[in-house]
Amino acid sequence: MSGLFQKHRALLDKAIDACTHRYAWTAYPESPSSRIHGKEIPAQAKEDYAAMVGRPFEMDLPGSHGLVGEEVSPYTREPLGIGYPRIDPAVACNAARDAMPAWRDADVATRVGICLEMLDRLGQAPALFVNAHATMHTAGQSFIMAFAGCGANALDRGLEGLAYAWKAMRDVPATATWERQFGAPPAVTLEKRYRLMPRGVNVVITCATFPQWNGYPAIMASLATGNAVVVKPHPNCLLPVALFVRTMREVLADEGFDPGLVTMVADTRSEPATIPLLDHPATAIVDFTGGPAFGAYIEKEYGHLQVYTETAGCNSVVIESTDDFGSMCRWVAHSMCQASAQMCTSVQNIFVPRDGIVADGDRLSFEEVASGLVDAVESHIADPKHTAFLCGALVDDSVQENIDRVRDQTPALGSVLRDSAPYAHPEYPVARTATPLVVATEADNKGFYGREHFGPVSFLIATDDAEHALSRATEDVREHGAITSHVYSANPGFQAQAAEAYADAGASLSINLVGMPINFAAAYGDYHVTGLNPAGNACLTDLAFVAGRFRIVQQRWNV
Amino acid sequence: MSGLFQKHRALLDKAIDACTHRYAWTAYPESPSSRIHGKEIPAQAKEDYAAMVGRPFEMDLPGSHGLVGEEVSPYTREPLGIGYPRIDPAVACNAARDAMPAWRDADVATRVGICLEMLDRLGQAPALFVNAHATMHTAGQSFIMAFAGCGANALDRGLEGLAYAWKAMRDVPATATWERQFGAPPAVTLEKRYRLMPRGVNVVITCATFPQWNGYPAIMASLATGNAVVVKPHPNCLLPVALFVRTMREVLADEGFDPGLVTMVADTRSEPATIPLLDHPATAIVDFTGGPAFGAYIEKEYGHLQVYTETAGCNSVVIESTDDFGSMCRWVAHSMCQASAQMCTSVQNIFVPRDGIVADGDRLSFEEVASGLVDAVESHIADPKHTAFLCGALVDDSVQENIDRVRDQTPALGSVLRDSAPYAHPEYPVARTATPLVVATEADNKGFYGREHFGPVSFLIATDDAEHALSRATEDVREHGAITSHVYSANPGFQAQAAEAYADAGASLSINLVGMPINFAAAYGDYHVTGLNPAGNACLTDLAFVAGRFRIVQQRWNV
Repeated sequence: MSGLFQKHRALLDKAIDACTHRYAWTAYPESPSSRIHGKEIPAQAKEDYAAMVGRPFEMDLPGSHGLVGEEVSPYTREPLGIGYPRIDPAVACNAARDAMPAWRDADVATRVGICLEMLDRLGQAPALFVNAHATMHTAGQSFIMAFAGCGANALDRGLEGLAYAWKAMRDVPATATWERQFGAPPAVTLEKRYRLMPRGVNVVITCATFPQWNGYPAIMASLATGNAVVVKPHPNCLLPVALFVRTMREVLADEGFDPGLVTMVADTRSEPATIPLLDHPATAIVDFTGGPAFGAYIEKEYGHLQVYTETAGCNSVVIESTDDFGSMCRWVAHSMCQASAQMCTSVQNIFVPRDGIVADGDRLSFEEVASGLVDAVESHIADPKHTAFLCGALVDDSVQENIDRVRDQTPALGSVLRDSAPYAHPEYPVARTATPLVVATEADNKGFYGREHFGPVSFLIATDDAEHALSRATEDVREHGAITSHVYSANPGFQAQAAEAYADAGASLSINLVGMPINFAAAYGDYHVTGLNPAGNACLTDLAFVAGRFRIVQQRWNV
Repeated sequence: MSGLFQKHRALLDKAIDACTHRYAWTAYPESPSSRIHGKEIPAQAKEDYAAMVGRPFEMDLPGSHGLVGEEVSPYTREPLGIGYPRIDPAVACNAARDAMPAWRDADVATRVGICLEMLDRLGQAPALFVNAHATMHTAGQSFIMAFAGCGANALDRGLEGLAYAWKAMRDVPATATWERQFGAPPAVTLEKRYRLMPRGVNVVITCATFPQWNGYPAIMASLATGNAVVVKPHPNCLLPVALFVRTMREVLADEGFDPGLVTMVADTRSEPATIPLLDHPATAIVDFTGGPAFGAYIEKEYGHLQVYTETAGCNSVVIESTDDFGSMCRWVAHSMCQASAQMCTSVQNIFVPRDGIVADGDRLSFEEVASGLVDAVESHIADPKHTAFLCGALVDDSVQENIDRVRDQTPALGSVLRDSAPYAHPEYPVARTATPLVVATEADNKGFYGREHFGPVSFLIATDDAEHALSRATEDVREHGAITSHVYSANPGFQAQAAEAYADAGASLSINLVGMPINFAAAYGDYHVTGLNPAGNACLTDLAFVAGRFRIVQQRWNV
């Protein structure tokens, strides 16, 4: 049994326990505070990041020829100038396929031990700080979000995927003795051996904003079950992926395995590599995070492969009533601001009865609810330093275009409650930033609000009443998907009705959630995508996410 | 908690234990012997079967209009004349969809208890005997095979599917308390509720020969996880399906659930219902047993659904050497005869080195190996009564056509080692019967032998040597699939090489299997289809077979 497995065994056991009881826990440091890490490591990491900019990224990939890379920092608006080794999709898939037999034949504990070591190295402070800089200057997140959300939070989801893979594999015994009589004696005794077999190459397509959060669980689950992985990052967001791919390859090589088990195919918008990767005969598993249209295409056209997707939805808030108007506004507004609403859990569509609601015992008009939310947005972004922490930057120009398009359409279909504008980033004066655009509209204007507008755009939608709000919101779930949904109601009957309605629509629901960032989806605690609406099927943390990544062949013989 | 769950709890626990340790066990009577069941129950069952022939089948199905049914007994060659209620695919799917909410909201133990009760009723002696007659006169099996293989053996696979569904659902806790601090105190405490949600309607397409063996596990796994089931039986083999569907509906109704949860859409060759069922928007899961071409079509075109398939393969035997030539020939020949080689585990292609093998220490020529096998076939079918037990009848005329086609092609491509002919059935003089056709050919003639020829057709294929045999056999696995594979070798090195080669090709392997019917795939012991070759992916007995049949939605709220 692998020494690395022994080294990390207690952590795995703890993760399995956390998955079972689903309490809050993290295995990795979430805070970049110098009180924890000192000043030297953060300073060195900043230098290490700066030293990578403008140069070829140091990573040996099989059959690489030339360099590729067109990342632009959302903070400096300058090209990172990092060239990544260019490898052909077929070369990456062939390398992955060729590396698999020895990996497959290693025992489960060896593979899981190596995966745990990968997470451990990625969870060391120097790696976390470099990862945070890399994520900031590609995905546009603030440093603090990049450190936690793309560091510990993502590693926890990776560890969780590993825990589930371990559970699913442990369910299959290695051997059995089987004895029975057929007709006359003697009985027949067979020895049976059950071998866990990988499916093949796992193409992991990561998104522009949170490549680690979905990438780690997919990669961990697939590697643990004996598959090889080819990561295809979004062309905007290569560096964080290149960093973790390099670390994973180092661990594999250190342990005597072919680093071809994890490669990265960097591509460009003009010459995309995804379809050739999916079409390669060795490809058997696809994990996709990205836009709904391409996600649906993959689900339909590549459904003969094992496909896990997380796309996007029309995340909604239904406000029926509240007995804590201030907190409700504060935390809904937080979601409208956080990471410039570029998270899969950001809310977009806020349904409010046209005649207003009862809040803290008083009647508030629609306009008063709107004011409460807008004021809460304003207080989140009053302090420039805090705004920078909370909002970060826009990942690319298309997000600004989304804002501008909605603003342009608004006069005909509603009114602007709060306009978006760049905010001055205290550290990066040219950063691509935008505060939330908040628009009021009518429930009838489905064509306006009823799809994802990626970025800091939200709609306050006037409905006939709370039931109408619920029916409109859940209809959007069915048609456009949802990854997160919220209801605010002081009325237990309506809470129960909402829970049923969202469950019927295949959506998870937070009820009166306050006191924390409502976008937060916790590893070990929160099941992610439900798979029951168009936002994908990558739960991340159930047996279905791992059980299809391996197969069983058996051998049997007479004793 | 359901009284039925308490009633059958010990059986479920035993099944889980059997799945975990994978020993031989059966929960249901395998033998029709009157020493166990007395004479009255069998006699009554025979009368009950006879009373069903020539009449409308008594079953209320939603929206039925008219009758459908064109079954012909392979034993009497006469139409059964049983009319089944005709229902439109959309009506069945709508009824299934509408019945789901109450079933979904029943607790897991209630659903599992009801499923256990269904198996229990189907496993009572009267039901088993009627089922055996029905299976005999549709699928063409001998009575004894129909009793065990489509009775206890199939029920055990159903119980096994239920056990896995239970395990997968038990992995998800019902609730959790989650507490953590975000920034400044106080900590946030959330209650989380995790709800198991069904996927939707499960269309279960059963085959002409063993509808229960694949049907029960699919139906049990889907019902237990909250889905509804529409069974689409093969037009040749409706009666056994109608019987179990009726029993399942009775149990549902007895327990106060809508029997629309299990329906049957009977169709005809000229007006097939499968595509409309698959296209219905409520359909979310497909279990298909049948031909490889249609199976591949479903996997490709309906891959966005959750698809489980068992199709067919080119099941092979590689003979390298043996130290028990007699037993080897006896048991390989048994597979060539059993159920007229209409089982998914029947062997077809027997690869033997052209220069012969070492058997029991002596050199035997290819021709001597061939003679040994043919002689073994002859001894299996020497006694007419035993032949009838072992071989049964051909399910339809197309099987005879397969035999005739291969015989016609043989002169150009090989030689007939043993010709097929009808055998005289002692009880049914006009039964559609055929003894095995055994053909010798060369390894080069892939186009001749290298695909499934359904029925009692087998090929002795002369190869350059044992390695050549192995490479040809495993190449066929990759191209055409395999559900079972065999190697006979007295050489441990070759055994190991074969185990690796078949595992590489994604096939399970039996090594030197003798002393029992080698077609036998044991519930609780044998993982079924590997999913790594074109013969499908329905393992029947792993977490992957059940984990994709349900999803999780969660609700969370502040405490």
